[in-house]
Amino acid sequence: MAPADRPVSENTFRVRYAETDAMAITHHSNYIVYFEEARSHYSREAGADYAEFERSGYWLTVAEVHARYIVPTHYAQLITARCWIEALKSRMIMFSYEIVDAETRQVCVTGYSKHVCISHDGRVSKIPESWLARMKNGLPDP
Amino acid sequence: MAPADRPVSENTFRVRYAETDAMAITHHSNYIVYFEEARSHYSREAGADYAEFERSGYWLTVAEVHARYIVPTHYAQLITARCWIEALKSRMIMFSYEIVDAETRQVCVTGYSKHVCISHDGRVSKIPESWLARMKNGLPDP
Amino acid sequence: MAPADRPVSENTFRVRYAETDAMAITHHSNYIVYFEEARSHYSREAGADYAEFERSGYWLTVAEVHARYIVPTHYAQLITARCWIEALKSRMIMFSYEIVDAETRQVCVTGYSKHVCISHDGRVSKIPESWLARMKNGLPDP
Amino acid sequence: MAPADRPVSENTFRVRYAETDAMAITHHSNYIVYFEEARSHYSREAGADYAEFERSGYWLTVAEVHARYIVPTHYAQLITARCWIEALKSRMIMFSYEIVDAETRQVCVTGYSKHVCISHDGRVSKIPESWLARMKNGLPDP
Repeated sequence: MAPADRPVSENTFRVRYAETDAMAITHHSNYIVYFEEARSHYSREAGADYAEFERSGYWLTVAEVHARYIVPTHYAQLITARCWIEALKSRMIMFSYEIVDAETRQVCVTGYSKHVCISHDGRVSKIPESWLARMKNGLPDP
Repeated sequence: MAPADRPVSENTFRVRYAETDAMAITHHSNYIVYFEEARSHYSREAGADYAEFERSGYWLTVAEVHARYIVPTHYAQLITARCWIEALKSRMIMFSYEIVDAETRQVCVTGYSKHVCISHDGRVSKIPESWLARMKNGLPDP
Repeated sequence: MAPADRPVSENTFRVRYAETDAMAITHHSNYIVYFEEARSHYSREAGADYAEFERSGYWLTVAEVHARYIVPTHYAQLITARCWIEALKSRMIMFSYEIVDAETRQVCVTGYSKHVCISHDGRVSKIPESWLARMKNGLPDP
Repeated sequence: MAPADRPVSENTFRVRYAETDAMAITHHSNYIVYFEEARSHYSREAGADYAEFERSGYWLTVAEVHARYIVPTHYAQLITARCWIEALKSRMIMFSYEIVDAETRQVCVTGYSKHVCISHDGRVSKIPESWLARMKNGLPDP
């Protein structure tokens, strides 16, 4: 469940036909992409646009990803990807996710991902202060 | 690390260009697909072809998936997907994976997935005995 | 160029990170998926929802697809997929597409696709009359 | 039909589960990826590895792609992607493709793609001579 003590971003979109599989449900690998777009959306809403972050010479690499599949979704279904920050440190960030039906709010998939900041020359780096500050906005004091 | 007490299947293939992303590495969501093909390959080698399993009226739905990203891979890189059975029960199966460089054997990504057997009418089912027996082949006694 | 004598549907969305490739642009195969979502959107706007069409026992199979790539697009870019009906016969439908930058309206990719109606038992069929009538809405007399 | 007067490369692989769609066939967008891997394979066999080509400062951008869908393919089906050079000029290359069933040799999908050479600073360029020479190998005199 999304915690009540911090911002949760939501973006809503339809399952694409190409994302379905021979079971006539959304193929499980696509939720990993939905998670990614959910955290992009979160950072955009936080004024910490990820595209700019990359252009400033850094990447948030994916260190770990986990998904739990509860209820399948289907072609053209309107779903909402919810995203919040689970943990934020100087070199690491962890997001959590819920994919819910946009209308019924039934939780379909949950998950999390962990990310490490590296510079474009490949070294693990501190997350740049200005970006970090905006991402921290609204989080409870650690 | 793949355990020594049970069969480990291996299939080797190249990273596709379409699987790379703007970081010029394999996008992390593709490993979830590599895992799936690795378990397909395992079952084929075990004489328990998954395509036939589906035709017999069952599905192995994905209940959970996890990946840990250690070293990135790149376009055209020859990689080997290693797969073994971590746990096998009457209604549940758990696979583990290692994606390694085909030549250096460096471990790039590890992961696991959990699956539940359902019949085509949507009910959680026992895994059919004949398929189960072939998948059990070579596993240590529980 | 989209013709002035018929409806053109538009849906706007962002390029996903997973859709970029090692050239740091949107991989060309994704536009084929954008085309598909554009025609889904068109049919939904025409009151001829494709998901319902499928449930009624038919498929619109893809017989041919063509894309011309003019200007690359990038991660997080807001793009608009424009779609219109080029030709509509009792058993065949042809859509055309333009992918444009949502803000500048620069045309990035154009294309078309041809589709044949088949029933779920695999036979080429006439497009059901009720669906056809709604798709014909607004088209010039043939 | 592949012409008899020039080399045709072949690579054989299985349709992945993630590539199927709710019609239980290979989603049509995946053939665009198969085409790409087929031309990668062609260039590798010609001793003109595309990964090296990129590292030398160039890209072969996709200007146009076309596919015609004749017979659907299915999960785990063994298919062969055949590829040959249709036309080769100083700045442009055109490939043709046939996706056939690996066993029956039935033609399932055909297509072509056109490519323009650009340098990494974005300018249309002549294809580097050494790469061009290897790709020309075996082609009929123009």
